[in-house]
Amino acid sequence: MLKTPTIVLNVKTYTEATGINALELARLMEKISKETGVSMAIAVQASDITRCAKEVSIPVYAQHIDPIKPGSSTGWTLPEAIKTAGAVGTLINHSEHRLILADIDTCILRARDLELDTLVCTNNVATSKAVSTFSPLMIAVEPPELIGGDISVTTADPGIVSNTVNAVRTINKTVKILCGAGVKNGKDVARAIELGAEGVLLASGVVKAKDKEAVLRDLTSGI
Amino acid sequence: MLKTPTIVLNVKTYTEATGINALELARLMEKISKETGVSMAIAVQASDITRCAKEVSIPVYAQHIDPIKPGSSTGWTLPEAIKTAGAVGTLINHSEHRLILADIDTCILRARDLELDTLVCTNNVATSKAVSTFSPLMIAVEPPELIGGDISVTTADPGIVSNTVNAVRTINKTVKILCGAGVKNGKDVARAIELGAEGVLLASGVVKAKDKEAVLRDLTSGI
Amino acid sequence: MLKTPTIVLNVKTYTEATGINALELARLMEKISKETGVSMAIAVQASDITRCAKEVSIPVYAQHIDPIKPGSSTGWTLPEAIKTAGAVGTLINHSEHRLILADIDTCILRARDLELDTLVCTNNVATSKAVSTFSPLMIAVEPPELIGGDISVTTADPGIVSNTVNAVRTINKTVKILCGAGVKNGKDVARAIELGAEGVLLASGVVKAKDKEAVLRDLTSGI
Amino acid sequence: MLKTPTIVLNVKTYTEATGINALELARLMEKISKETGVSMAIAVQASDITRCAKEVSIPVYAQHIDPIKPGSSTGWTLPEAIKTAGAVGTLINHSEHRLILADIDTCILRARDLELDTLVCTNNVATSKAVSTFSPLMIAVEPPELIGGDISVTTADPGIVSNTVNAVRTINKTVKILCGAGVKNGKDVARAIELGAEGVLLASGVVKAKDKEAVLRDLTSGI
Repeated sequence: MLKTPTIVLNVKTYTEATGINALELARLMEKISKETGVSMAIAVQASDITRCAKEVSIPVYAQHIDPIKPGSSTGWTLPEAIKTAGAVGTLINHSEHRLILADIDTCILRARDLELDTLVCTNNVATSKAVSTFSPLMIAVEPPELIGGDISVTTADPGIVSNTVNAVRTINKTVKILCGAGVKNGKDVARAIELGAEGVLLASGVVKAKDKEAVLRDLTSGI
Repeated sequence: MLKTPTIVLNVKTYTEATGINALELARLMEKISKETGVSMAIAVQASDITRCAKEVSIPVYAQHIDPIKPGSSTGWTLPEAIKTAGAVGTLINHSEHRLILADIDTCILRARDLELDTLVCTNNVATSKAVSTFSPLMIAVEPPELIGGDISVTTADPGIVSNTVNAVRTINKTVKILCGAGVKNGKDVARAIELGAEGVLLASGVVKAKDKEAVLRDLTSGI
Repeated sequence: MLKTPTIVLNVKTYTEATGINALELARLMEKISKETGVSMAIAVQASDITRCAKEVSIPVYAQHIDPIKPGSSTGWTLPEAIKTAGAVGTLINHSEHRLILADIDTCILRARDLELDTLVCTNNVATSKAVSTFSPLMIAVEPPELIGGDISVTTADPGIVSNTVNAVRTINKTVKILCGAGVKNGKDVARAIELGAEGVLLASGVVKAKDKEAVLRDLTSGI
Repeated sequence: MLKTPTIVLNVKTYTEATGINALELARLMEKISKETGVSMAIAVQASDITRCAKEVSIPVYAQHIDPIKPGSSTGWTLPEAIKTAGAVGTLINHSEHRLILADIDTCILRARDLELDTLVCTNNVATSKAVSTFSPLMIAVEPPELIGGDISVTTADPGIVSNTVNAVRTINKTVKILCGAGVKNGKDVARAIELGAEGVLLASGVVKAKDKEAVLRDLTSGI
């Protein structure tokens, strides 16, 4: 189970984090995580899980699972398949890969059966509260309009973080709340934690950075 | 480029072909393909491509690609990712994973740019003809109601195979036509070829068989 | 706002309730509702709203709205359009028309802005609880495997009704809970109310009945 | 069957063409069509079909149909329902409402069975050619990046129109080809016809215009 506070990196389908590049980025995170003691996880494409999980000690997550059981689901992502490949958790319902409500429920149940960490992405306070009724391990609230942008959610809309924490706590005392969208540096991370989050979910801020190591080190300074 | 006549095995998301089981099945196919000289390819889950492609010499296909370019597509299947993992081709528009028309066009273009074989699945004569205008490498016509069933398309509806061949030929002289659904033995394969197909696409007939090797050998006898 | 206890009839896309047939069924319900004093609403296809709402006094619902604002959404269902046509409420997230979580939130907000009743369909206790955090007017829990079947949810799985009521009450004291799937007669309705529901959502039990009037009258006997 | 050359107006879900506004716009088109003799059709939201079709003599189209038969399809658009409501045709596969390939085939067949005109929208030459194998009544090619924009497809990308006409003619001699995206005035219409199209499909150019009548009259001047 992922330790918090934490930094979760979703590498999406960027060229800079596909194939060997995903592995190199995972290794870099492993190095910095070991040096700093900061908990980190990397969510890679399905085809990159096996190698990353085999060669790196930080937690490797899938970016998505489908609400299916083994059988006839050509081209969909079977929870068992990403588990067997070495993933220890998965994003669910990312902004770029939304699921219908009943399928979020099913995905969380399937992941729990397989002892996979569940990190469910949400777009606002209301949907975070709804998801908290399912008791996933973590919820990452990310306003869609800020994703991939230059301003961190912790600056552009700090209220969404603290309000999510407060709203979710009325329902569920144990789910961990992360925030994301536009997060780029240690100050953003520190601010996230001040607002009640237990870490961040980010992507382009690291993956598209010229000096990924510098950005990752800076991010850890916020924890 | 896959040689024809051929037997393409789509292992779907069956437990019997996930993780190490996928690799073992791929090895079995490799052995029989070498012994018999019959062209075979295996379409595995994205998380199984790397290992299968590394350890086995028969062509490894993805089961699906999404119509995307590198970037922000969390949890979707990037054509570059499956290429880098070692796939040499991909199924497109499988019955269990249909695509909108414009996306079939885009997937074929993206795969062609990456020099990936394209095997587009269709449900009837009319859609096969439509797809042939895109000039994929192969089209596999599979009546959905016969998929996973006990009766081979070549017995239950032989006309769909010959009519597809004839209809496609009025548009496109080079696309190779496979057929699928319920295919289980060498007689079905032989009949497919008599009807004008250049091979078969199958799944459960092999994957769910008690004696996979016997079934695979029998299938090759039809070519 | 729909009065409870209530009987909500979803006529789906049945021939027996398309066009003039929808209107006749709405008139029949109006007659029985007036005679018995039992609250009833009818959810019709978008193209049938105008006529039903104009000619009948019982509440007319849409079967679905999309999470959109006026603009460029060709062929989707604009909440304003069904409101203008005369609907006073809408089903949301029906089993045959599931929505992603963020869109359920948006649909409820859009409907509330337009003062449309919201009846959100769910598949189990967990998703009912999640939806209750959005405070719709009503939630109708319907186990998908029982929809359209011969055995009422109140017989086949009474626990899902009482457990939904109990689970939702821990979150939300005001949302009204209906149940559905296989409901066919007054005993089923009476049992639903005993289990804590404030009515039923049903479809084929009335629409496919030879004697719709007899079935409707029997249903009202349960309230 | 819609006469060509023609001007087809898709009013989308604009406020300016919802409810009574749709009816007024339909009446305006009827008036201008009668005065000028130019063939025109209007594609309105499902909830507006009944009234428009009843009160106006120009052809009323649906904006979409789903590939379904009567039955259990809550909230989807049944071809029979829009026919009964008075539509004489339908858009299929609009840029804002794309369909999977097999469903385009099914929608065309369902519409043909009901004697509804079929106007299938496409995004480029390749998909137009593919759709022409299904022999719909009309194909409207619209580059998505130009839809809703200020520059007409006939100016920004005239080649797509002439190339579509040429490519489709190698497959199908009878399907009528329209073009759309950014069309705003009579010159655009005239140019479309010069390029081999038999009319235009447009939306915002009329619906969002301050003086709809002036724009409509100008459009007819191009025919």
